[in-house]
Amino acid sequence: MSLPRLTDARAPLVREIDAVDEHGQSQRVQIPAERDLTVYVDKRELVTLMTLGARPEWLVLGYLRNQRLVASPDEVESVTVDWEVGAAAVRTRSGIDRIEERTARRVVTTGCGQGSVFGALMDDVQSIALPEARLTQAQLYALVNAIRLQESTYKSAGSVHGCALFQGEKMLVFVEDVGRHNAIDTIAGWMWMHGVDTGRATPDNPFVFYTTGRLTSEMVIKSAQMGVALVVSRSGITQMGHQIAQQLGLCAIGRATNKHFLCYSAPQRLQMQPALAATRLPS
Amino acid sequence: MSLPRLTDARAPLVREIDAVDEHGQSQRVQIPAERDLTVYVDKRELVTLMTLGARPEWLVLGYLRNQRLVASPDEVESVTVDWEVGAAAVRTRSGIDRIEERTARRVVTTGCGQGSVFGALMDDVQSIALPEARLTQAQLYALVNAIRLQESTYKSAGSVHGCALFQGEKMLVFVEDVGRHNAIDTIAGWMWMHGVDTGRATPDNPFVFYTTGRLTSEMVIKSAQMGVALVVSRSGITQMGHQIAQQLGLCAIGRATNKHFLCYSAPQRLQMQPALAATRLPS
Repeated sequence: MSLPRLTDARAPLVREIDAVDEHGQSQRVQIPAERDLTVYVDKRELVTLMTLGARPEWLVLGYLRNQRLVASPDEVESVTVDWEVGAAAVRTRSGIDRIEERTARRVVTTGCGQGSVFGALMDDVQSIALPEARLTQAQLYALVNAIRLQESTYKSAGSVHGCALFQGEKMLVFVEDVGRHNAIDTIAGWMWMHGVDTGRATPDNPFVFYTTGRLTSEMVIKSAQMGVALVVSRSGITQMGHQIAQQLGLCAIGRATNKHFLCYSAPQRLQMQPALAATRLPS
Repeated sequence: MSLPRLTDARAPLVREIDAVDEHGQSQRVQIPAERDLTVYVDKRELVTLMTLGARPEWLVLGYLRNQRLVASPDEVESVTVDWEVGAAAVRTRSGIDRIEERTARRVVTTGCGQGSVFGALMDDVQSIALPEARLTQAQLYALVNAIRLQESTYKSAGSVHGCALFQGEKMLVFVEDVGRHNAIDTIAGWMWMHGVDTGRATPDNPFVFYTTGRLTSEMVIKSAQMGVALVVSRSGITQMGHQIAQQLGLCAIGRATNKHFLCYSAPQRLQMQPALAATRLPS
């Protein structure tokens, strides 16, 4: 399989501004960058994404993947990002079939960031078969702790969502963006570029998504589409996120901080070790 | 002026589900409802919103307002919401001019919820003249305290964004939704139904928006479009939110909890009383 050629466009992730605090004093604070990136597919304008800009090429690739406009990375010849003009030019090998029609339906969803899911996303959720996957409570704690220790734009500037892909307790990639769906899409792009096949993981060393954001329907669907059967969040879950997770048998775990969590669906995928809840975490 | 006729469709805002906690015990927890509401304008499908469903008619009206598809409430004859079919039927008095064209451009933004701003929103930000408005630090503290005391779905179920409109320290309306832009749009609809004209406020008793979410470009623009010159959030600000707030002279105040805050822009609109930062808040 031939992978797309990607540029490696970089831009600062934070910006310093002056703010006035409650004592009337000026403070120099960092805020996250936010850029508009207009995606052109074979010279046709598709969408404008507002992004932090950490890994725009993976973002664009993952966006096309998660919108189901591209089925395999080898359909894409190149992604060329130029921050000077705020454009990402995607060149495909043989075009995207019926692109007009497939991007026509508009659903404005709950999630942060890429709220506009082109219609097809919801259409065949039922057909997804998730891999066998089972996480232990110890692995879950290790994963939550890894996130706690991760250096991040969030720690310095706030106002971004973080997202990570784990295998077992090992963090494979960590991405932040001003929109949480950008973060998960960036991971989808990363997975394609790194040939990650979630179906090949052994059941006791499964792939797991972590997100700082809420478990909305869109997060659950995107995770399932990428073959990831476990999703962990420090936030809660919405009703449609819950409903779809249950339908899919996807294990959605929320409120995961320190030793606490709530497993909202498919608890058979989480191997409980309640004795661990009583012991201290490593610091 | 003749106001639109609205239904008063109600539906439960929370749902109880069973979750498994870290001790392996089943807990009954509440999660926010989340429903899809497809908006039809004169029988033509416009958009599907994912919403908590607290005040769907105001939401639809405010959505049309903030997307600038409707310039005045008297252009709308009725909004009829039927949860059984998940539909909001909008009937206008004389149609919406060039609706196809005006809803064609797609911008996927940072904000939670209604991420898809139809293109026109960003176009003439420059032409907005905000009213004279000046908030005291004491008013700001009173406002933040009112939010703290407010009963909410957030407190019982989490995972929703709250938004409120104040005049001075008086809360006029408080709205929650699974998407923060739904919440602000619902307030925009409420304002139209209640004949609120922000231009008529005296400068020392100004209208103020409060949001639990981040101050993104979209929040700042929507606030400005509604003639509200001060926005307060418990979260931070993104770069584009900051940039547009500065351009507009809109006072954006973030990290507002207890006595703390950071004023990111137009500090001349905030009358500092730093001595208050040292005193105790009423509890």
